[in-house]
Amino acid sequence: MSRSFIAAAAQLGPIARDEPRSSAVARMMEMMREANARGAELVVFPELALTTFFPRWYIEDEAEIATWFETEMPSASTQPLFDLAAKLGIGFHLGYAELTPEGRRFNTAILVDATGKIVGKYHKIHLPGHWEHEDWRPFQHLEKRYFEKGDLGFPVFDAMGGKLGMCICNDRRWPETWRMLGLGGAELVVLGYNTPLHYPPAPEHDHLQYFHNELSIQAGCYQNGLWAIATAKAGREEGCDLIGGSVIVAPTGEVLARAAGTDDEVITARVNLDRCGEIRRNVFDFAMHRQPADYGRLVE
Amino acid sequence: MSRSFIAAAAQLGPIARDEPRSSAVARMMEMMREANARGAELVVFPELALTTFFPRWYIEDEAEIATWFETEMPSASTQPLFDLAAKLGIGFHLGYAELTPEGRRFNTAILVDATGKIVGKYHKIHLPGHWEHEDWRPFQHLEKRYFEKGDLGFPVFDAMGGKLGMCICNDRRWPETWRMLGLGGAELVVLGYNTPLHYPPAPEHDHLQYFHNELSIQAGCYQNGLWAIATAKAGREEGCDLIGGSVIVAPTGEVLARAAGTDDEVITARVNLDRCGEIRRNVFDFAMHRQPADYGRLVE
Repeated sequence: MSRSFIAAAAQLGPIARDEPRSSAVARMMEMMREANARGAELVVFPELALTTFFPRWYIEDEAEIATWFETEMPSASTQPLFDLAAKLGIGFHLGYAELTPEGRRFNTAILVDATGKIVGKYHKIHLPGHWEHEDWRPFQHLEKRYFEKGDLGFPVFDAMGGKLGMCICNDRRWPETWRMLGLGGAELVVLGYNTPLHYPPAPEHDHLQYFHNELSIQAGCYQNGLWAIATAKAGREEGCDLIGGSVIVAPTGEVLARAAGTDDEVITARVNLDRCGEIRRNVFDFAMHRQPADYGRLVE
Repeated sequence: MSRSFIAAAAQLGPIARDEPRSSAVARMMEMMREANARGAELVVFPELALTTFFPRWYIEDEAEIATWFETEMPSASTQPLFDLAAKLGIGFHLGYAELTPEGRRFNTAILVDATGKIVGKYHKIHLPGHWEHEDWRPFQHLEKRYFEKGDLGFPVFDAMGGKLGMCICNDRRWPETWRMLGLGGAELVVLGYNTPLHYPPAPEHDHLQYFHNELSIQAGCYQNGLWAIATAKAGREEGCDLIGGSVIVAPTGEVLARAAGTDDEVITARVNLDRCGEIRRNVFDFAMHRQPADYGRLVE
């Protein structure tokens, strides 16, 4: 496979609480067809792309919580997406809530190759938010309650003719995420996010949400010499506004494509994995310039 | 001392090869007076602020190399700057090349309090460039040749009513620098830089030099919830263009002041150290959200 290809971010607009997975999948299939028609060989869907962003609600009933989780992948409702990908010969990234056979719950992302086979899995490590119901919030952010911290580290996979890594939403704000993936050899990081426009603990920063999203991704790309495709679930979902701003970012940190709105939207750009060396062989030549002996505090 | 104060970056235009230290000091004193008149209680001068950026030349003669280094601080030529600071009651940051009594050479920065006393010292850790003369370059970047890697770690000092850290030039591009300082409790990081506009190993990125400077500093501030004052030595120095772009950046990553040109120039902004908590108690609450057990690769 060529190391230079067209890639797409397929931003999802809001998913209603009562919208079935089959509907979300149908919307993603439509965008997959568009991405394919525009020449894309890889399409990146958001975090928790099959349902509304349920961690905004405090739910005590375990059976109700379970309704938001997938127990198999592909499942009956997602199989058509896998089938279409295989038919079109397009790889994809999908985020979903995973309930394992052992009863463990993770915020999960998978990488699927152009034959419809799952070739990589990641469990979100930097879970944002809180554990308990907090009355004062207009909406909750209970990822720490509903998900375990990821147990797979920051893996890097052989795919698309190169090395691909994944992270999820809040992971992208942490330079440790990008550096772990960069040191692992990642040339392209794919990720999805659900980011409320309103941040109840510090509402004075609400106007900075798009800026902080781009800043984190651009810095991660530049400081590790890798590409990123970052895809939002966006728009007003059950009364809660989520930012859009899906982007494709080059290893220079430059934004090469950006979503215009907060609804279903495909953006594309040419990704050339060979360009990583422009950064990684020079100013960020890790072997020549990093000083791990001076970084002890980072792991204490 | 109040945790909210006016701070200044005092950008230096070019310093010629034959310009004496007394002239550079006089220029800095003039800017210190301006900063003071504009209400500043702290003024940040650049890296290697007393001479031209000599690592652009390959020098074999040890005696000639020694002429670029300071063997004491304050010295006869810098004492007037310390005296003026004490008289005005203004703190400052200064970068210079240091030759220790043991014959070790460091790229050094000091923090001087409002009484003219040195209260902090840092030795640059991320030395960029190369060790040997490289014929193909239009100019050299021999910091790895002339300086030892810093031996002081990333210290944080009590000053200006808060916790201050320092880094130098290329250090600012490395997220490890900012995180080490952030984990050390720094609320304000002061730094200077000499950054050529032309980067011979990847000239296709020359147009991105200002962007990469700001991106690195903004990400460091946001991802650690701290302030930064970053000051350039700028302009055409001995045929080599250095970028300007001195900035004062808030813990939100927002640029609050930016130099307009590439000559001697003072910029100011109000720094309120209490604002660090807006970030550090929330999205970047390290104790709540960092996962050091997953970061092992960072120190290997």
